[in-house]
Amino acid sequence: MSSGKILVAQGGGPTAVINQSLVGVVREARRFPGVTRVYGALHGVRGIVNEDFLDLTQETDHNLELVAATPSSCLGSTRDKPDVDYCERIFDVLRAHQIEHFFYIGGNDSADTVRIVSAAARQAGYPLRCIHIPKTIDNDLAGSDHTPGFPSAARFVAQAFAGANLDNAALPGVYLGVVMGRHAGFLTAAAALGRKFPDDGPHLIYLPERSFAMERFLADVKAVHERLGRCVIAVSEGIHDAAGAPIATLLAKEVERDQHGNVQLSGSGALADLLCDTIKTGLGIKRVRGDTFGYLQRSFIGCVSDVDAREAREVGEKAVQYAMWGDADGSIAIRRSGAYAVDYALLALDAVAGKTRTMEDAFISESGTDVTDAYGAYLRPLLGAGMPDAYRLRAARVAKVLGR
Amino acid sequence: MSSGKILVAQGGGPTAVINQSLVGVVREARRFPGVTRVYGALHGVRGIVNEDFLDLTQETDHNLELVAATPSSCLGSTRDKPDVDYCERIFDVLRAHQIEHFFYIGGNDSADTVRIVSAAARQAGYPLRCIHIPKTIDNDLAGSDHTPGFPSAARFVAQAFAGANLDNAALPGVYLGVVMGRHAGFLTAAAALGRKFPDDGPHLIYLPERSFAMERFLADVKAVHERLGRCVIAVSEGIHDAAGAPIATLLAKEVERDQHGNVQLSGSGALADLLCDTIKTGLGIKRVRGDTFGYLQRSFIGCVSDVDAREAREVGEKAVQYAMWGDADGSIAIRRSGAYAVDYALLALDAVAGKTRTMEDAFISESGTDVTDAYGAYLRPLLGAGMPDAYRLRAARVAKVLGR
Repeated sequence: MSSGKILVAQGGGPTAVINQSLVGVVREARRFPGVTRVYGALHGVRGIVNEDFLDLTQETDHNLELVAATPSSCLGSTRDKPDVDYCERIFDVLRAHQIEHFFYIGGNDSADTVRIVSAAARQAGYPLRCIHIPKTIDNDLAGSDHTPGFPSAARFVAQAFAGANLDNAALPGVYLGVVMGRHAGFLTAAAALGRKFPDDGPHLIYLPERSFAMERFLADVKAVHERLGRCVIAVSEGIHDAAGAPIATLLAKEVERDQHGNVQLSGSGALADLLCDTIKTGLGIKRVRGDTFGYLQRSFIGCVSDVDAREAREVGEKAVQYAMWGDADGSIAIRRSGAYAVDYALLALDAVAGKTRTMEDAFISESGTDVTDAYGAYLRPLLGAGMPDAYRLRAARVAKVLGR
Repeated sequence: MSSGKILVAQGGGPTAVINQSLVGVVREARRFPGVTRVYGALHGVRGIVNEDFLDLTQETDHNLELVAATPSSCLGSTRDKPDVDYCERIFDVLRAHQIEHFFYIGGNDSADTVRIVSAAARQAGYPLRCIHIPKTIDNDLAGSDHTPGFPSAARFVAQAFAGANLDNAALPGVYLGVVMGRHAGFLTAAAALGRKFPDDGPHLIYLPERSFAMERFLADVKAVHERLGRCVIAVSEGIHDAAGAPIATLLAKEVERDQHGNVQLSGSGALADLLCDTIKTGLGIKRVRGDTFGYLQRSFIGCVSDVDAREAREVGEKAVQYAMWGDADGSIAIRRSGAYAVDYALLALDAVAGKTRTMEDAFISESGTDVTDAYGAYLRPLLGAGMPDAYRLRAARVAKVLGR
């Protein structure tokens, strides 16, 4: 069994439960007598090269539990993508601090960072155990049934559309909500779980797994609006035309990219506004409203799936167990083992790093603008206990007297 | 004591607790043996002229309670503003159905509708008891300590900013959230209740009660960003320049107005995008993100203040009691009678209809970009039980070894 010093960090976009994973690592690691210190790097790999470490060995269990229940990365995060030079600076610091275990909580970009650091350590002959701990609201990691952070964000999206549907029913028109998800539509598709009655919205769901054509879109909206007198639409920020060009960037004056080469899609209402203007102009519908869920869907405090919180804790615990009792670097994966139960596995970093999972065809309806029952069966247990529910009046209509 | 048939309707924008008031009316009215029928008009006054009534006498208490806990107007709503002709059509219908009590749940525009209908009934010699039941997330009704619907929306805004602040701390930059509120900044100011630690955001709050100047705004943001390396900003959709022109409409290609003459501000991300672009360009800050909370803040299912729910129920109950035991038309007002307790009063319709309350000076800081402690003391008890809370790591920094 290995021992010594442990380092943990958080990368990429925050989630509602990312601190559960951190606390899972810290509390599990502190159970091993050979572990002398548990360090936390501030702002991901950037904190490593800057030697910005907190000594988490000196945190109370009580405060750790309070932090675990707090959303967003408590150590801070980063979008840095280490190259070879960056990795050498990481080694210098790890060596100087005699750190022998590196746990990085993040998505597929962070998994790639772990892969690079792991390979560089091996090449340099430095004894470093590297484990990637999954986290992403996009649910786009290869090899997992789902990823921690996604269920809570999905719960937010489902609750948001359940409410938006009721609002739209009270003041009819067209309502459109833009949801995060660059390549994978899982989070946008969660809007479907906000439905209850047959005529509830979202009536149309646009996913990045299918090409988006404005004419088809207008025809879809027109048909629903004529049938129900209203229309609720869920749109992924990542929708793109048949050539693969994101609709959102067709509008942008200037495209902003992060260090992983990703185009910045969130933090602007431009896509929702474009689609609303097109509906107003093209269909002559007056009341058309668009919201961009933006950062609320990943950071809103007080919307957490208990299933998600529990699993996020466990992937942190399992990471330490694999590091201490196993003999390989890797990425923790969630496997569904029952209806509903999960088990965990250690995947090779190559199997996860930089890879993107998208929605399986079985989850998308024939029309391409809805999900299947299979998707509902997949997602429902992840949303956790206590989902709010919507009810309607069932009273009889009163006969008209004047009947004008 | 009056008796006979009762009619209730819901107008204006939905809230999280507007159905509590409806159920308060229905259940209280059904206790009076003289009440033969309780009708609900679909889509407000429009449902009256169209004779679109549900017979709520034939609803189960059980389903009424489930509907009460469901957000958004279960009877549907309208933005119609009755003129004299419209009112005459209302009387024709009420007379034909022998309805003698009219309860209208809504904001100051709905109160104005009740005032017009009440006056027209008196003039026509038709025996109609008209009671306005308050509801608005804007908290802008005259004569009330606060209005049902506002506390739950304020809770959403406070939780949203508490989360956005954590997200912004993890990935520093500028974050800007646009909040509803045409003339009154109460809801935007609720963002301040999301703060806990001294350096938490929102660091700047822009209210419609103060003029907005872009240069001053940029200087404010620059100062916070230089001090903290990040900045979280709450902006009311109703901010306007010194001449009173809304900043949002300075951008709009085409201004949309409702029948009350109000300019449409929500349902577009344009204001947030304009302010973000200005910060990027003017201050050279790269990571600038803007969200427009849009319809989420009034319709999100599962974010309700228990205090708000209870009071919304009571204003419905009180409305029926005033109608049955009293001898005047009016508008129900909430009065704060303790810390924290409330009492109810019946105000003259003239005192509420069409009037707009804005934030008292005592609630706004000297700088004009924050709230005072008095506002915190005012709002905190309204947010209800179980507000989620944020915690931080308190572990010690590790000494640098390389110290590069």
